[in-house]
Amino acid sequence: MDDKSYHMTPDDFRRRGREIVDWIADYWETIEERPVLSRSKPGEIYDALPDAAPAKGESFDAMLADLDEIVMPGITHWQSPNFYGYFPAHVSGPAVLGELVSAGLGVQGMLWSTSPACTELETRMMDWLADMLDLPRDFRSTGPGGGVIQDSASSAALCAIIAARERATEGGFNRHGAGPGLVAYASTQAHSSIAKAIRVAGIGAENLRPVPVDDAHAMRADVLGEMIEADLAEGRLPFFVSATVGTTSSHAIDPLAAIGCLTRRHGIWLHVDGAHAGTAAICPEFRHLNEGLESADSYCFNPHKWMFTNFDCDCFWTRDRAALVGALSILPEYLRNAATESGKVIDYRDWQIPLGRRFRALKLWFVIRHYGIEGLRHHVRAHVAAAQDLAAHVQADTDFELAAPAPLNLVCFRHTGGDDLNKRLMERLNASGRLFLTHTVLDDRYTLRLSVGGTLTTRDHVLRAWESIRETAAQM
Amino acid sequence: MDDKSYHMTPDDFRRRGREIVDWIADYWETIEERPVLSRSKPGEIYDALPDAAPAKGESFDAMLADLDEIVMPGITHWQSPNFYGYFPAHVSGPAVLGELVSAGLGVQGMLWSTSPACTELETRMMDWLADMLDLPRDFRSTGPGGGVIQDSASSAALCAIIAARERATEGGFNRHGAGPGLVAYASTQAHSSIAKAIRVAGIGAENLRPVPVDDAHAMRADVLGEMIEADLAEGRLPFFVSATVGTTSSHAIDPLAAIGCLTRRHGIWLHVDGAHAGTAAICPEFRHLNEGLESADSYCFNPHKWMFTNFDCDCFWTRDRAALVGALSILPEYLRNAATESGKVIDYRDWQIPLGRRFRALKLWFVIRHYGIEGLRHHVRAHVAAAQDLAAHVQADTDFELAAPAPLNLVCFRHTGGDDLNKRLMERLNASGRLFLTHTVLDDRYTLRLSVGGTLTTRDHVLRAWESIRETAAQM
Repeated sequence: MDDKSYHMTPDDFRRRGREIVDWIADYWETIEERPVLSRSKPGEIYDALPDAAPAKGESFDAMLADLDEIVMPGITHWQSPNFYGYFPAHVSGPAVLGELVSAGLGVQGMLWSTSPACTELETRMMDWLADMLDLPRDFRSTGPGGGVIQDSASSAALCAIIAARERATEGGFNRHGAGPGLVAYASTQAHSSIAKAIRVAGIGAENLRPVPVDDAHAMRADVLGEMIEADLAEGRLPFFVSATVGTTSSHAIDPLAAIGCLTRRHGIWLHVDGAHAGTAAICPEFRHLNEGLESADSYCFNPHKWMFTNFDCDCFWTRDRAALVGALSILPEYLRNAATESGKVIDYRDWQIPLGRRFRALKLWFVIRHYGIEGLRHHVRAHVAAAQDLAAHVQADTDFELAAPAPLNLVCFRHTGGDDLNKRLMERLNASGRLFLTHTVLDDRYTLRLSVGGTLTTRDHVLRAWESIRETAAQM
Repeated sequence: MDDKSYHMTPDDFRRRGREIVDWIADYWETIEERPVLSRSKPGEIYDALPDAAPAKGESFDAMLADLDEIVMPGITHWQSPNFYGYFPAHVSGPAVLGELVSAGLGVQGMLWSTSPACTELETRMMDWLADMLDLPRDFRSTGPGGGVIQDSASSAALCAIIAARERATEGGFNRHGAGPGLVAYASTQAHSSIAKAIRVAGIGAENLRPVPVDDAHAMRADVLGEMIEADLAEGRLPFFVSATVGTTSSHAIDPLAAIGCLTRRHGIWLHVDGAHAGTAAICPEFRHLNEGLESADSYCFNPHKWMFTNFDCDCFWTRDRAALVGALSILPEYLRNAATESGKVIDYRDWQIPLGRRFRALKLWFVIRHYGIEGLRHHVRAHVAAAQDLAAHVQADTDFELAAPAPLNLVCFRHTGGDDLNKRLMERLNASGRLFLTHTVLDDRYTLRLSVGGTLTTRDHVLRAWESIRETAAQM
């Protein structure tokens, strides 16, 4: 058995690694030359790839050539400074290098013992971030709570729902399935991942109550209170409320304090989803977003959206880690070990759905240390300022209107010419390749969303985007 | 807004990227000098890290120094050729470089339109692999089925359960929650992720029937048949069977053909978990493992275990993608787009629990092309041969015995001196730093597991491990 055969040699890895690092740097430096939205047609890339895997190994040069020729035309450039769609999912140098170290180490963090550093660096990062965002004291690992990195806010919501489900039924759902009339609540503007997680967890879509919103698209806590009372009166068991700080549609901010009064009174698990907007709380002037968070049982935000850390990296905290671990722990013989049995360590596999887990804290550590709190604040403020500029331009233009308040870095707006014109306007802009934005529907009207958060996006880019929007609309 | 401030400059990224590539190559080249199992004590690393995030950015040199001094002592070296614990989760040069490209591109693959290449390369890789493993025709994307990359076999099992649940209840569970007496089956040796997913999906632990196993620790299909009949007679609805090709404890292989007869007859969803052993089917001589797989509704295996692709990369196929997508799809306004509405594309967000997804097909593409089918087969065969050698040594030694058949690259064995001696033997071996192995319990007896699958593991390493085991036992 010749261990060298077929493997990439260390020398080749060094050489090819350098080429890939340069390829990425070149990509980032020239990204504006590419149309933001891929122009690929369905099936084009699939068809361009061979029908079958190669029998014999191929050269790395051939792979790199195909990367450029086949793959790159099929890329929608999320890292372009002119990408304004959805919410950002940006990257940065230190994050990518942290990811690279993690890939090279190739350790599993499922148990403390499978790499103590993987667990303890993660716990420390979650505690750092709890301080950086000024989260409630109880979320820190030094108290009854703690934080964990999940792949996404979808998975964080699912874990919160499972923990809430078991707390409400004293473990009954885990044992018996089916529940005694459990009901959950989220505003009509909550992210689709909440509805999906409610289904996955076996609660049933019809037991998720859509709570109406006010004129600013934020949850109406008064109506939530009435809905809870009505469900209680009919013998059901309200067990979960999901509130949002910065909805996907319009960045609406649910009134956490008022919602928290209700959930506390009734012993309902309150989960708060700050997936995108959560990063803003790094800056003291935006911390009012989280007012009332001290009533929440769990909270998450995504550094992979707006904190320069590449996907996947969702940070999820709970004030009640016993509920979470109690709901998700299973210990087969082959995972037993002395450290776990000592009770002195965290085994993060019990804080998530899958068993395996990467060393994701490394990239977060690199990002926080590279930028420092000061650098992160600088960029959050710059993005917010650029978005506020844009909002002012929209308001000053008689052909356009703001479709919702723009408290941070998402601007929802529309041309006054109606749904059809707005739809065609967006399609034409996206087809131009100069920028990319996506839409939503607010108050039954087609609405354009411009989300400012790219690592490379500057105020100049946003102003040029606005010029493109105005010019294109004028031509139509 | 100065877009350069605080960000790592392209030149710095090139320079630091090279350093990290070299750091990884150095690590791999010197990995045998390190004790395999970390000697870190609980809390040591957490305490060595500062209490708070830095206010100002730090130098990359400082970060690299801390990586070496604080993090590395807390690493259990999964990439050491002397790591024989659990199942491997190994890496390779081309995989790490594919991961690096993916991190640099930073695209989201949630929808086809968010980067067509991310979806179509993945579909092509899944079709390539279906051919490479000689999977049933219906699993290919060209028919009613198709494949998708999940993070782990845990998540694949959960998706299979949700699809099965909804197929059995005609979408009723998704709508109403609670089920009409749904019951699932898996052998007593099934991975804990099945039991966890059954809980998460709201089926209830008591509705997962543990099916007894035969002397080789494989599921007894005859008893399964009786259990299904008994449940039907009592008015329950058998909806899901999970079978395993290569259990975690002992690499037992459930009789798929006999199980498949039962599941087909009763319209039960059959999921087959080949997480680790599945890779072996790349070699024609091991394809008997999958005999009967044509009756399965879904199947998964993990290239991140034994196919040189770094975590996470679980490949999951179903023959019934309509059932999967029907169970998991949710389409809010802000994700609507022309390509999705055309029905001509795959949106992989509907094939998984989370919304966001990385471009994981890149690393798989790099691995398959770098090694070619020939190279992958070479290494699978070499690992199996080394494990078979070890099994022969165990059998020839009167102080040791095989604890289970060793059909591939996992050898379960024990010293004849009893549980306590075996436990102490493992602890002493792991404390030596020379190798790392883990245990299980088979037939109520403490059993050592030696799993041969490291990228760098050769026959010589395995023979030296055996020498260490014998010598250490002799000293005790």
